Amino acid sequence: MSSTRRIAVILGVGPGLSTSIAKSLSTTHSLVLLSRSLPDSLPKLNLPSTIPKDNILALSSDGSTSSLQKAFEDLKKHWPEGRVDVGIYNVNQKFNLNGFLDKKEEDLRRGLESGVVGAWNLSQSLLPLFLSNSPDPTTGAKGVLLFTGATMSLKAGGKFSSLAPGMFARRALSQSLAREFGPQGVHVGHVIIDGIIDTQAVKGMMGENGNKRLQPDDIAQTYLSLVNQPRSAWTQELDLR
Amino acid sequence: MSSTRRIAVILGVGPGLSTSIAKSLSTTHSLVLLSRSLPDSLPKLNLPSTIPKDNILALSSDGSTSSLQKAFEDLKKHWPEGRVDVGIYNVNQKFNLNGFLDKKEEDLRRGLESGVVGAWNLSQSLLPLFLSNSPDPTTGAKGVLLFTGATMSLKAGGKFSSLAPGMFARRALSQSLAREFGPQGVHVGHVIIDGIIDTQAVKGMMGENGNKRLQPDDIAQTYLSLVNQPRSAWTQELDLR
Amino acid sequence: MSSTRRIAVILGVGPGLSTSIAKSLSTTHSLVLLSRSLPDSLPKLNLPSTIPKDNILALSSDGSTSSLQKAFEDLKKHWPEGRVDVGIYNVNQKFNLNGFLDKKEEDLRRGLESGVVGAWNLSQSLLPLFLSNSPDPTTGAKGVLLFTGATMSLKAGGKFSSLAPGMFARRALSQSLAREFGPQGVHVGHVIIDGIIDTQAVKGMMGENGNKRLQPDDIAQTYLSLVNQPRSAWTQELDLR
Amino acid sequence: MSSTRRIAVILGVGPGLSTSIAKSLSTTHSLVLLSRSLPDSLPKLNLPSTIPKDNILALSSDGSTSSLQKAFEDLKKHWPEGRVDVGIYNVNQKFNLNGFLDKKEEDLRRGLESGVVGAWNLSQSLLPLFLSNSPDPTTGAKGVLLFTGATMSLKAGGKFSSLAPGMFARRALSQSLAREFGPQGVHVGHVIIDGIIDTQAVKGMMGENGNKRLQPDDIAQTYLSLVNQPRSAWTQELDLR
Repeated sequence: MSSTRRIAVILGVGPGLSTSIAKSLSTTHSLVLLSRSLPDSLPKLNLPSTIPKDNILALSSDGSTSSLQKAFEDLKKHWPEGRVDVGIYNVNQKFNLNGFLDKKEEDLRRGLESGVVGAWNLSQSLLPLFLSNSPDPTTGAKGVLLFTGATMSLKAGGKFSSLAPGMFARRALSQSLAREFGPQGVHVGHVIIDGIIDTQAVKGMMGENGNKRLQPDDIAQTYLSLVNQPRSAWTQELDLR
Repeated sequence: MSSTRRIAVILGVGPGLSTSIAKSLSTTHSLVLLSRSLPDSLPKLNLPSTIPKDNILALSSDGSTSSLQKAFEDLKKHWPEGRVDVGIYNVNQKFNLNGFLDKKEEDLRRGLESGVVGAWNLSQSLLPLFLSNSPDPTTGAKGVLLFTGATMSLKAGGKFSSLAPGMFARRALSQSLAREFGPQGVHVGHVIIDGIIDTQAVKGMMGENGNKRLQPDDIAQTYLSLVNQPRSAWTQELDLR
Repeated sequence: MSSTRRIAVILGVGPGLSTSIAKSLSTTHSLVLLSRSLPDSLPKLNLPSTIPKDNILALSSDGSTSSLQKAFEDLKKHWPEGRVDVGIYNVNQKFNLNGFLDKKEEDLRRGLESGVVGAWNLSQSLLPLFLSNSPDPTTGAKGVLLFTGATMSLKAGGKFSSLAPGMFARRALSQSLAREFGPQGVHVGHVIIDGIIDTQAVKGMMGENGNKRLQPDDIAQTYLSLVNQPRSAWTQELDLR
Repeated sequence: MSSTRRIAVILGVGPGLSTSIAKSLSTTHSLVLLSRSLPDSLPKLNLPSTIPKDNILALSSDGSTSSLQKAFEDLKKHWPEGRVDVGIYNVNQKFNLNGFLDKKEEDLRRGLESGVVGAWNLSQSLLPLFLSNSPDPTTGAKGVLLFTGATMSLKAGGKFSSLAPGMFARRALSQSLAREFGPQGVHVGHVIIDGIIDTQAVKGMMGENGNKRLQPDDIAQTYLSLVNQPRSAWTQELDLR
């Protein structure tokens, strides 16, 4: 398989965790980076120059079926011979911590879109490609699909009425897909990030002193471990804190 | 308070559990029954004749904001002096156990609508009414809001990719509302029904021998216990099996 | 069954929750109260005079097999014709919040004894009696066995290294017994009390202002609801907060 | 730190998972292998000849305080300059799936000894050594303490009344220690092995065809990932299935 280009697709790419995941995957994979603001926002990601530019394909997608269909068509044209075998769903919830009665149905719907609908659509695009792969000779996986979760994936605090439902739903999707597609050779995992990630945005808001924050590169190391887990002992869920 | 009419609102009323809940509440409450097919389907509910007809108000609602606004306006006209202090969200998921790749985004969206959007909208209608109540002299509650859950609220099986996300999300909403409104005197609970309810529909499909099924009247007894719990020791979640 | 004396056995009886549970059961059951300090400490329980004295049998037991065998022999002599059909395991952990390295193996062992060994021994004494009963005509239960849990039954905080293991273990026992004996007609439940109970002892230490504390009588109401649940819809676990 | 000998202590070593963990750690660590039957049973472990014999210290311990004190004294004499910075508690429960009423208190106690008392004692021996270390320059950890869990750590089936309590208790201990010692630089993790490990013993009982079994070497890869996790993003719990 050394001659086959391996491709990882990351949806929800901004400066922060997804950039670190991209870096950590870049030694083995070509990268398809997707977000609402890409490709325009690509320079802001500050990807290291060690990643060859022709190993990156940045495309626009808001997680909708139509935008993903377009992106996967572009991907197929760009790297027609590639093997897509990693997918990361890393779309953040847009924070809204108003009281429930100060929120609108629209806030819940926004939370559900980024929480689970985009994850569903990405999975619909990736799983047929994964299933058409042969098992990876090292791990035995036809593909690896990882979802990023949060504290509010497990516990819904009082201010999280519009955010937690989508994150609980994302976790449900990851469980269901793991049970359906695990036996078919697809590793589906859910990573619960139980704390604040020390991104540029967070530093801007909360200051530099991030001793208790999770470092994006440190989190990415575990994503990479999950991608490399052998088939007989896959992790469905873990926490990072 | 003996002279005040107490009103319970149940959304998702069909023959089965909701009818049993209605019966169990009818000795203390007037009933507002809501579902997509009401009021036409009222005769099919087989409500016992012991419930006075003028204690029942059956209205149409599909859980949308607009249908609920209409229903609550009708309710206010019908019983202008009543105290609305119980709400039950009992909308079932429409079963679809196809494999994930045989499902459409539309299936997920349907699951989210019945799973959590309707629950959100009912809560938006009820909570302001609850908060305007004085505490019940016996229980200390300004209102009680109960959500019906299922096995798939906790664990998403391989065929439940379009159903479990909405039920996980419903559970998240119940947790968040309990934490926000519990301190304000509103009891929010989540009832996980971990098995098959022995309804007429189930008997038709699976036969009469329902020894291992949950009886609707037995489940309703626990809903009633939850409605009557005193404020210092409220249950947020329980299972029934 | 009206002519048969029904008997409830409570292990871990002190002034507080167990007294309230005893009161709530006393209208239907004769009471066997067990603790290390009984029968001497009986006057300190402040049981209401409405409970006839000859409906109470107070005996000493520390939860050991030998003390329980003795107690059940005494019980059998005292009420030879009775039907033992309720058991409550309510033994508290003796608090020790030292740091782990300031604790001894002995502290862990003490936590395990009160946490799970006593619960095991009580279950060994009660279950054969339950299984020999006919089903209760109202609930269908041959017996009801309830275990009191706590916040630390689910989450082990940093200071709870010697206490949480026993409470986690108690929860495991309740689950296992529910799965083994539920199909045989025995209801096994676990009540997670997620907060501080407003007992005399707590009032002495922390003051009277217990607005956020759980009232023992309010908790007992839910124990009574569990005892009365019909067989098709039993609760295995609930929280009170 | 390249000149300092790093030492990993594994308690509960038999042919199977612990041997694979030993192999995976042997490139960076000297190994202290502890079990009831060691050092006599060392040849049966079939450790690969690639591990230098003088990198292995096999000692007897049944998990008791006294046996561990002896073992750690021997360790200190053997490698007086070493840095002990990894501990693995991997003691198996001795299976006993009898019905509850066919079990004795002794069965529960045995489950608690291997489930949690040995884990407590190992932690008491290791944590002071860890706390005296400087942080590892790569991971920032003063030490890593991993506990092996199982399906029955989370759910207690009907036949697991004497086994699950000890495993629930082990999980509680791991949580409590993580919360107390994480902020002090010690990584405490709990690995839930949700399935059957394909050991020689299992092959003997259940046959060779272990497609659905977890391979010990595959599991060990994840233990190694946990040992190498950087401090800002530690996993407290993960499953392998």
